[in-house]
Amino acid sequence: MTEDRYFEDYIPGTVFEYGEIRVNESEILDFARRFDPQDMHVDPAAATRGRFGGLIASGWHTGAMMMRLLADNFLPKNASLASPGIDELRWLRPVRPGDVLCIRVSVLEATPSRSKSDRGMVRTLIEVLNQDADVVMTLKPMNIIARRSYS
Amino acid sequence: MTEDRYFEDYIPGTVFEYGEIRVNESEILDFARRFDPQDMHVDPAAATRGRFGGLIASGWHTGAMMMRLLADNFLPKNASLASPGIDELRWLRPVRPGDVLCIRVSVLEATPSRSKSDRGMVRTLIEVLNQDADVVMTLKPMNIIARRSYS
Repeated sequence: MTEDRYFEDYIPGTVFEYGEIRVNESEILDFARRFDPQDMHVDPAAATRGRFGGLIASGWHTGAMMMRLLADNFLPKNASLASPGIDELRWLRPVRPGDVLCIRVSVLEATPSRSKSDRGMVRTLIEVLNQDADVVMTLKPMNIIARRSYS
Repeated sequence: MTEDRYFEDYIPGTVFEYGEIRVNESEILDFARRFDPQDMHVDPAAATRGRFGGLIASGWHTGAMMMRLLADNFLPKNASLASPGIDELRWLRPVRPGDVLCIRVSVLEATPSRSKSDRGMVRTLIEVLNQDADVVMTLKPMNIIARRSYS
């Protein structure tokens, strides 16, 4: 994680890219058996007969892998206070065993809090891409980040 | 999972409740070490000193636990085709070790596809509640469900 990044460092219009994360079948199965045991995620044979033509990752797993790249690279270690939520999360294409994912993070807005002068809200567009540069997932999260002047 | 539920069975206005899932510290740590290694999720001592006063679950973990309740209880085993995404995901309160979660699923809309007559889109509001009936997370997912008449 970035030790010394603060709200002021998130400049609207800037774009960052981070990765890679390689997706493998055993991790898809592990995650899905625990959290999303639908055939397309946990049963390779049934998934092969199904509409995606093979096993695909749970969308929550793809989101969790995205989160790992975000926590490791984009969010500050000390100044990341919380996330109120996410708008417009979309799963656009399947994620399959062997895929290699990266993320592109575009800073959309950075708004100082009106009620709490020690922090601000950063809104981003995150695109998750695979090795063919296909966008597999997009989302617009919000993150509350501490201001440097109050650290 | 529900073997024999189809698009026609998701009636707007109906409300379902499912649960429980008990949250424990080791699962919070396991998930977060893999996917969301921020101090508030992976370091109990630092989390105790932090703004939440103790360890809290990654929001993606709360979402994944919600997904398990949804897959086990609400989505049909055969007729659940895909999810295009989620709108308005909000993390409203922290989820802590020892919490017991359930979900309330309200069917908002059920719209037959105009382009593919074998399916429709179901939109829901999902509220994740803890043992004190506090709403800790809300989201509005979309699910594409097969129509019975085409099964």
